[in-house]
Amino acid sequence: MADAINWIIPIAGIAAVVFALYLARDVLARDKGPQAMQDVAGTIYEGAVAFIRRQYLTIAILAVVGAVVIGAIIAVVETEDVAETTIFGTELGFRTGVAFLVGAICSMLSGIIGMFISVKANLRTAAAARHSLVGAVQTAMRGGAVSGFLVVALSLLGVWGIFAAFGGLEGGRATAQAPFLIVGFGFGASFVALFAQLGGGIYTKAADVGSDLVGKVEAGIPEDDPRNAGVVADLVGDNVGDCAGRGADLFESTAAENIGAMILGVAVFGIASNLGWPHPEAWIFFPLVVRAFGLLATIAAMYFVRGREDEDPMRILNRGYWATTILSVVGLAVTTFVMMDTAGATGANGIPAWIWFFLAGVVGLATSIAFVYITQYYTAGNWRPVKEIAEASKTGPATNIISGTAVGFETTFVTAITIGIALLVSYFLGDQAGLVTADGHNVGGVFGTAVATMGMLMTTAYILAMDTFGPITDNAGGIAEFSKEEGSAREITDKLDAVGNTTKALTKGYAIASASLAAFLLFSAYIDKVNLILRGQGKPLMEAVNLADVSVFVAAFLAAMLVYFFSSLAIRAVGTTAQSIIVEVRRQFREMPGIMDYSQRPDYARVVDITTKAALRQMILPGAVAVATPIVVGLLLGHEAVAGFLMVGTISGVLLATYLNNSGGAWDNAKKYIESGQLKDAAGAVLGKRTDAHAAAVVGDTVGDPFKDTAGPSLHVLVKLLATITLVLAPLFIR
Amino acid sequence: MADAINWIIPIAGIAAVVFALYLARDVLARDKGPQAMQDVAGTIYEGAVAFIRRQYLTIAILAVVGAVVIGAIIAVVETEDVAETTIFGTELGFRTGVAFLVGAICSMLSGIIGMFISVKANLRTAAAARHSLVGAVQTAMRGGAVSGFLVVALSLLGVWGIFAAFGGLEGGRATAQAPFLIVGFGFGASFVALFAQLGGGIYTKAADVGSDLVGKVEAGIPEDDPRNAGVVADLVGDNVGDCAGRGADLFESTAAENIGAMILGVAVFGIASNLGWPHPEAWIFFPLVVRAFGLLATIAAMYFVRGREDEDPMRILNRGYWATTILSVVGLAVTTFVMMDTAGATGANGIPAWIWFFLAGVVGLATSIAFVYITQYYTAGNWRPVKEIAEASKTGPATNIISGTAVGFETTFVTAITIGIALLVSYFLGDQAGLVTADGHNVGGVFGTAVATMGMLMTTAYILAMDTFGPITDNAGGIAEFSKEEGSAREITDKLDAVGNTTKALTKGYAIASASLAAFLLFSAYIDKVNLILRGQGKPLMEAVNLADVSVFVAAFLAAMLVYFFSSLAIRAVGTTAQSIIVEVRRQFREMPGIMDYSQRPDYARVVDITTKAALRQMILPGAVAVATPIVVGLLLGHEAVAGFLMVGTISGVLLATYLNNSGGAWDNAKKYIESGQLKDAAGAVLGKRTDAHAAAVVGDTVGDPFKDTAGPSLHVLVKLLATITLVLAPLFIR
Repeated sequence: MADAINWIIPIAGIAAVVFALYLARDVLARDKGPQAMQDVAGTIYEGAVAFIRRQYLTIAILAVVGAVVIGAIIAVVETEDVAETTIFGTELGFRTGVAFLVGAICSMLSGIIGMFISVKANLRTAAAARHSLVGAVQTAMRGGAVSGFLVVALSLLGVWGIFAAFGGLEGGRATAQAPFLIVGFGFGASFVALFAQLGGGIYTKAADVGSDLVGKVEAGIPEDDPRNAGVVADLVGDNVGDCAGRGADLFESTAAENIGAMILGVAVFGIASNLGWPHPEAWIFFPLVVRAFGLLATIAAMYFVRGREDEDPMRILNRGYWATTILSVVGLAVTTFVMMDTAGATGANGIPAWIWFFLAGVVGLATSIAFVYITQYYTAGNWRPVKEIAEASKTGPATNIISGTAVGFETTFVTAITIGIALLVSYFLGDQAGLVTADGHNVGGVFGTAVATMGMLMTTAYILAMDTFGPITDNAGGIAEFSKEEGSAREITDKLDAVGNTTKALTKGYAIASASLAAFLLFSAYIDKVNLILRGQGKPLMEAVNLADVSVFVAAFLAAMLVYFFSSLAIRAVGTTAQSIIVEVRRQFREMPGIMDYSQRPDYARVVDITTKAALRQMILPGAVAVATPIVVGLLLGHEAVAGFLMVGTISGVLLATYLNNSGGAWDNAKKYIESGQLKDAAGAVLGKRTDAHAAAVVGDTVGDPFKDTAGPSLHVLVKLLATITLVLAPLFIR
Repeated sequence: MADAINWIIPIAGIAAVVFALYLARDVLARDKGPQAMQDVAGTIYEGAVAFIRRQYLTIAILAVVGAVVIGAIIAVVETEDVAETTIFGTELGFRTGVAFLVGAICSMLSGIIGMFISVKANLRTAAAARHSLVGAVQTAMRGGAVSGFLVVALSLLGVWGIFAAFGGLEGGRATAQAPFLIVGFGFGASFVALFAQLGGGIYTKAADVGSDLVGKVEAGIPEDDPRNAGVVADLVGDNVGDCAGRGADLFESTAAENIGAMILGVAVFGIASNLGWPHPEAWIFFPLVVRAFGLLATIAAMYFVRGREDEDPMRILNRGYWATTILSVVGLAVTTFVMMDTAGATGANGIPAWIWFFLAGVVGLATSIAFVYITQYYTAGNWRPVKEIAEASKTGPATNIISGTAVGFETTFVTAITIGIALLVSYFLGDQAGLVTADGHNVGGVFGTAVATMGMLMTTAYILAMDTFGPITDNAGGIAEFSKEEGSAREITDKLDAVGNTTKALTKGYAIASASLAAFLLFSAYIDKVNLILRGQGKPLMEAVNLADVSVFVAAFLAAMLVYFFSSLAIRAVGTTAQSIIVEVRRQFREMPGIMDYSQRPDYARVVDITTKAALRQMILPGAVAVATPIVVGLLLGHEAVAGFLMVGTISGVLLATYLNNSGGAWDNAKKYIESGQLKDAAGAVLGKRTDAHAAAVVGDTVGDPFKDTAGPSLHVLVKLLATITLVLAPLFIR
């Protein structure tokens, strides 16, 4: 049964793809509403396709170049006496290049298809909102779920497929060396994610900031006003940043963390083989099987996304989330029970190993729940932090910014404490499982953190569906506004838009948490790989990463710097790109005087095109810095310094991203809090729109935009890229 | 001669104190100007004395409690089988407590006297500015130098005195154990510095932000207008933050880094004794002697602070700085040549050890020069970064903030690269010197970084004099404005004020650089101390700090979080304190209607009093968090985790402080850039005061205030506190 269960991997993967297609058909068959809506949606669709075509063409070229370079490096560097596998040199270089390309293609494919459905679902959601809240929620959520399922299923099928193709199913030694052959897949996924997130993040916020500045501030027309030539670019941006960008981010998470966990599984495989436990390969397959069960749980949970017309839409979504979580716990129990067969050997207190690991997986699921609620506390209007920022807006933009910064810094506290507890507890639980090598080395602790990470990733498809719900409802609102729709549609889309803001914030919290939890496991995978190489070369092993070594310390210092420098470049890229939009919209206002009285239609497509080109140009420098820095540090300072670089870079990146994401989210919702009329002056009068307090809150919101939608999410990707790049290029850094 | 040279320590220390008294007399004897000026200055003086009295009383109480608690902990924990010295238990507890108190008292003393002269020198500077620029520069610089010399001399005499009192002059084993007995001194200094910087930083920015918001924004009267009841508190604040706060910061630097270097010197002492080199104790005395030469160099350099009336005042100050540096190089050469006598044993390439270390010291001096210019580039109006922020102000406060954030993040790049190079080079140089133990362990590398740190600290007195020049000239400008002085005085004080902004920024860059350079040496000192304890207990030594250990990783994560959380508390404290000022000034405007037409005098003293109380109340929470977190982490996770905590906390703190200091400085100077009429619109018209661009720049300036004057400088102190607290309490954390 421990072998048979492996078939759940392709079955769940294919089931999820089929289900995604079914959802896509369902969404596409829905009512498209009046012609006015269809026209706007058509323009957004064209813009999105134009961006995606150009962006993915650029990324595809970069990926092919990347694959060739990586393959060539591995072919030259990883010779027989360096390679930790029976495959090396040209053959290994070729396989790594192929794995890189497959990873890149799967990531691009899921991004493109998800985007495509998302820009179709927005229209259907707007149309559904004319009649029913639940109908609109379901349309948006199903549209989002297409992305969610495709991303997770393609990552699962991709890892499994390349694992199978490289001999992973043969059993024994072949299975044990396969995880090292497929690391290129994770690197390919990270590589695409970096540029997808950077390009999308720069595009979306440049369009937002640029069209706001030139429309709201200069021309004095409302947000999303059809006379603003930049407004379609803004609506397109929501899709390319939140949908395609975050999809690539989580594609990378699931792929990279899965491979990292498989590498740790190899260590357990060794113990299990020596001790004569049955099915030692099960430990390597385990991460894939757990994720397969997560996918099945999510498919079932989609049927829980239902509720009453007068219900808070967030409750409807939460119902599905809890269903996913509970079903995942069941799947986790089944997987650990069936696969972690230690042939009578038990862990501490006579409790079998599978129970300890089951509990570690539950820790991962609990961590993801904790982050969902932590993010809500810090970025939703019902609690102290957002209220505090709204209050501070009364004394102007400066105090608004200061207060938001204080809140953003503060959010690192509970983030770090939660991650710290999750790591210590899951390590402790794994440590109790009794996975002890012949020489007394207990590898269970690290594997416990890996199980926790995989447990956390079980709900990724659902989380991603909720995330994509955000841009779809945001767009639906824009379409309703744009097509001058009256009545219930506007009201419902406004409600859904607010919920969408929360779900987008949640996803970032989730992405951060999974990156932190995975950091330790990917770090351990790096050390495992380096030691295999060192052993092959007959060199002393890297027993520890010594922070007291000057090279390690300097590398750690540079890593902590990289996350600031990278963020600086990303934020600046938004400003530069926004400038080109401002110039173009100004030109249209000037040269097409009919725009203002609606007698001329602005040239939306031209703005989209200009933004696309500028954003793609601007993503190159930060992208290059992110890829080059770990390589340069590795070449100059060696493999131990790279380990310090990886670790401290992860810690610093996670915390800086936490600050950027949460301060941005809190600023956004402080503005919404004021707009909803909840802020009052000393005399009790409402301070709503068009007051100084609101103007101050708009400043904070604008500042937060590149924080939370460009730099922060790009940092998630950077952190994981550091892990995959060092894992693949480890042989290059060996001293 | 290697023994005789030690007498330079008390001689230079006492000479510097005498010289400071001479400068103080000289300043006090100068012209006090017209009665109107004297009246204002009198009010500032009273406010400053009131704050200082209350603040230092609070700190003194905390310090006595701290000394007793620390002494008691050491007495209980450091028993015979834990202590690394022949003195332990109650006796060691008593000595540590005494050292802590002496450190605290010296720090407080230098702060109080420096402040006292500073609030006397401001009036003399304003009076001198009525006649001569050079006269005003000299008055302000001499006033500042009183602080500079007292801080450095008292730190030198304090360390030397307590070292002598605890048997350091006896030679042999007694000398070698003395550095471990005096670590309490550094902790006491850090402890006072934390609260002095926090309290002063909160006070100064709360007074600034609060009185600006209620005066400029609400009542529409100019900055520093005498009708604003908060304006005296603002002027007092410049002294308590920049003068007393930074003085305590650098007092701590010199003391803690000196003691850390002496502890590393003990390791070299061991080698020198075994190899029979002459005067092995010289390696322990070395840091003290180097600093003594630095003091003498600075005394001589004060006579180079002269120039022409039409000269840029920054050039006049730079002349003195270069004189200090060049004389320090000479002093460094003498010290290394005389003291580093290896009795014929030579380093790499047959070059004697002293040359290698001399070069390492030069690296330290060069690093400090590099930081002086790096800070100028990023925060002065002549270069790209500040201009970029000023340009971004054209599109409003949001783009101003975004641009300043990008610049601030960017500054971490050159900071980390410079520190990285300095560490690697000084380590390499030290490594070449041939300090190899019997078992082949080369301790020269770490000692090389220690020599670089000491080299850097040679110019501290001059840097601190330049720093205190800032608040003195700032105050002089305020006095001139307040007393309605016309003509050249205003012009000259405005000029000096701008220079003062630069020198204040430089000092922060210098403090950051020295903290980073020292991080590695203090970290090594911690490891040395832990290993001495472990050896005493017969436990395996801590050979490495293993980042791959889950406890170390979690501790590192918590450390990186601490610097954000601490900054959040510090920034929030400014907001809370500012609120109490706003409420009080509003009340005075309301209840004393004569203020507006000058017929009633606002109650300045009451605002000062309220601000004082609020600031001191607000400093407790961040202070407690800073002190408690490393202790809690150490108790829960053990001594190796503390090492990771210390290292990653230092790296993260240094980089966050770099961002906060430099973005704040750049925002401030972007505003000044616009005020000076250098920003032009597309048509070439000047965008100066009272334009939207200027209003946007004011927002950035206000945001930057708590960044650069509260959170950033407090982080310097936090970083060093982490080092001293873990050094002293190491026995508590041993597993």
